[in-house]
Amino acid sequence: MDHKIEIRQYIADHQERYLEDLKDWLRIPSVSALPEHRDDMYRAADYAAKLLQRIGLEQVEVIPTPGHPLVYAEWLKAPGKPTVLFYGHYDVQPADPIELWKTPPFEPTIQNNNLYCRGVSDDKGQTMLVIKALETLLQVDGKLPVNVKVLIEGEEEIGSPSIGAYVKEHAERLACDTVFVCDSPMERADTPTIITGLRGMAYTEIEVRGAQRDLHSGLFGGVAPNPLHAIALIIAKLKDENDHIHIPGLYDKLQAPSDFDREFWDQDPLNLAEGFKQEMGLNALSGEPEYPPLERIGGRPSFDVHGIVGGFVDPGAKTVIPGVVTAKISMRLPPALNSKEVFALLEKAVKSYAPPNVEVTVRYLAGAEGMSVAQNSSSMTAAVIALKETFGNDPIFVRSGGTLPVAVIFQEVLNAPVVLTGFALPDDNLHAPNEKYSLDNFFKGIYTIARFLEERAIIVD
Amino acid sequence: MDHKIEIRQYIADHQERYLEDLKDWLRIPSVSALPEHRDDMYRAADYAAKLLQRIGLEQVEVIPTPGHPLVYAEWLKAPGKPTVLFYGHYDVQPADPIELWKTPPFEPTIQNNNLYCRGVSDDKGQTMLVIKALETLLQVDGKLPVNVKVLIEGEEEIGSPSIGAYVKEHAERLACDTVFVCDSPMERADTPTIITGLRGMAYTEIEVRGAQRDLHSGLFGGVAPNPLHAIALIIAKLKDENDHIHIPGLYDKLQAPSDFDREFWDQDPLNLAEGFKQEMGLNALSGEPEYPPLERIGGRPSFDVHGIVGGFVDPGAKTVIPGVVTAKISMRLPPALNSKEVFALLEKAVKSYAPPNVEVTVRYLAGAEGMSVAQNSSSMTAAVIALKETFGNDPIFVRSGGTLPVAVIFQEVLNAPVVLTGFALPDDNLHAPNEKYSLDNFFKGIYTIARFLEERAIIVD
Repeated sequence: MDHKIEIRQYIADHQERYLEDLKDWLRIPSVSALPEHRDDMYRAADYAAKLLQRIGLEQVEVIPTPGHPLVYAEWLKAPGKPTVLFYGHYDVQPADPIELWKTPPFEPTIQNNNLYCRGVSDDKGQTMLVIKALETLLQVDGKLPVNVKVLIEGEEEIGSPSIGAYVKEHAERLACDTVFVCDSPMERADTPTIITGLRGMAYTEIEVRGAQRDLHSGLFGGVAPNPLHAIALIIAKLKDENDHIHIPGLYDKLQAPSDFDREFWDQDPLNLAEGFKQEMGLNALSGEPEYPPLERIGGRPSFDVHGIVGGFVDPGAKTVIPGVVTAKISMRLPPALNSKEVFALLEKAVKSYAPPNVEVTVRYLAGAEGMSVAQNSSSMTAAVIALKETFGNDPIFVRSGGTLPVAVIFQEVLNAPVVLTGFALPDDNLHAPNEKYSLDNFFKGIYTIARFLEERAIIVD
Repeated sequence: MDHKIEIRQYIADHQERYLEDLKDWLRIPSVSALPEHRDDMYRAADYAAKLLQRIGLEQVEVIPTPGHPLVYAEWLKAPGKPTVLFYGHYDVQPADPIELWKTPPFEPTIQNNNLYCRGVSDDKGQTMLVIKALETLLQVDGKLPVNVKVLIEGEEEIGSPSIGAYVKEHAERLACDTVFVCDSPMERADTPTIITGLRGMAYTEIEVRGAQRDLHSGLFGGVAPNPLHAIALIIAKLKDENDHIHIPGLYDKLQAPSDFDREFWDQDPLNLAEGFKQEMGLNALSGEPEYPPLERIGGRPSFDVHGIVGGFVDPGAKTVIPGVVTAKISMRLPPALNSKEVFALLEKAVKSYAPPNVEVTVRYLAGAEGMSVAQNSSSMTAAVIALKETFGNDPIFVRSGGTLPVAVIFQEVLNAPVVLTGFALPDDNLHAPNEKYSLDNFFKGIYTIARFLEERAIIVD
């Protein structure tokens, strides 16, 4: 039997078990941001480790960190062949607002050939399909075509604070020829997507203090500073109605885009902007009007408020003037902008914008750098072949607006080309209620990874 | 024995029981704003009704309303004497933020001669002292010097939506010569305070909708409208850094203050502004710089944001762009400004300030009118005598910044002069954590009310 058909057949024959393994993993609510899920993080890591052991990987280890543990495994029995390091993460976003979920957020539920569950798309489903690709090849061939290392973290959704130190201290153990990161979406269901750039991020909290305690607006309304009003004044000064960010110095270090990016952004050949509108249910896009939509995501810094904490937020009317409030704000940053430098500029701007009679503190909560990826590595060639074979269309190369701190660490510390791709879809509701993953893409992903490894084995660097 | 001494003695002899009755009432968490406390509202109303029955009042009734019940009682055995209607409320503000309470919010706790509990100052303690004044006179004299009616509501903290209809429909039952409202603070611990004006209020919710669902800021940051940013832009346009409110037409109907108010505001003879600073723990007051602080509270409209609902407000970093957010905003309004008219102006301003690509809805959540009180009624004279006798100092007359919808209803429907006074202190933490009430003032209040009734009986209208 043709080897490709053999692989397809094995995946088809084991669909049910492959799915059950994913569902069991999804049922563990491994929310890295919430302290009450600390034990779940260990359960989710253990689950991955046991699975990697079972399929035949070696040196399997759950590695403690100051935060949530890492999982490592390897298979190094292909002497003379390249080594591929796979990365994924088992932590997930919080499920809130829970009331908007149509199915229980941590009970995997299949509807219309999609699997619904928090973390199914980001990133347990995309990590599991890598494991299942390895399992498939090991079962069909008794071996892998290249050497493989697997590193799975549990802190991706909280800014990957621990993995960097581990990678730096264990650069030899993790040495490889390619890093493969399966944690991103396809731009369209028929168009595989390879990411050639990531934005960095600076996530901050701006705390505004007024009076030493909450006040009654009847007794003090007119003489008390209102921190909620002050934070609104500050935010309005930081970004205007046209989404221009007013942080002095912010735009200074931005670099001109490459001709490839310029053309892709200007032409938007797949009309991705239309898809964004549909996703959002809006007739128009927001953002800086003088830049094309794809550039606003891939090449421009963005500024978003994620939540404002303080005061009265229950139903009904309470006339409190809160003593202290906090705004959660993050900025996405093109590769040329350094997160810590931008934070310093932001902090300075916030302090200069603060109205009188309040005390403002700006905290750096999490951050990461952006990166650019070369399009001409052997790994990229292998990925293009495997993706095209699976989906029938050439993959497109796009600069993502998202952030993946570990990708930058891998590129810098391991000095290996990084392939960033994945099988999520634009409507998978990442970080939102009713997160889902296409079952078709789960199985296509398994096949793609298996084929990628075979192609990577025969391409000469 | 001198009759005044007899009253004092009776109060002193029954301090412990009087306090226990208050504490039992306080333990019922009658939070009118929160649906889960619906049963507690009935328990608190029943408790008041039983107590009024026990001390000898008649026609005691718990009266259902579309919201929380009213409590009514009367004693009408003083033919030819005036009738005084006492008003109080048994509902309390929510206890949040609970973590800032030093004692359990619904477990009355005595420390340093203060009683700490949610609602002790606003208004269960001040309602209970009226009941205890009636009990004292009935025990000492076997009768009251005037006719008395008592009406206690359970919706004061949510804008008194039901009591107005009841008062209008039962104007005959409630007919009286004086309304006495014991629900306000003294400006200083040694200075009894009579309120000559109240501000009205318009409490609104501004809802801002962007995308049809929550979005990931990495994937959409740069093309998605952010409702939290939009609400900040709107709020910043509604009120500037100098606390000038930019609602076209708002200030048009404001009236020039009386000479009495003008002088009191300009001179601030008790240096109340200094007390506000101390209360707030600040070196400066906020508010419109060109108006004196007392005028900003008593004579100018104020604008306050109370909470912004939506997005991610837990600890940690989540990069969500919320689809919809709501800001809770209220304005306090001097008597010349009508709440519904101001709401219409606010709604128009908000819609004109909304940035593109979001949908804005402004809801009128609750409202009330302001009022002015004449200083020369018989009731006022009786109150001045009783307050001066108890505290040793003449009371001051101030325009409060607060709101009391029922006071306006009483004045208009019953056509009776309203006496607004009380024994709370400026540092009683109304509507805030660690609400307290001075035990001294609780007992002084009982004595004052008893003496007021005796004086009211002998002053000829």
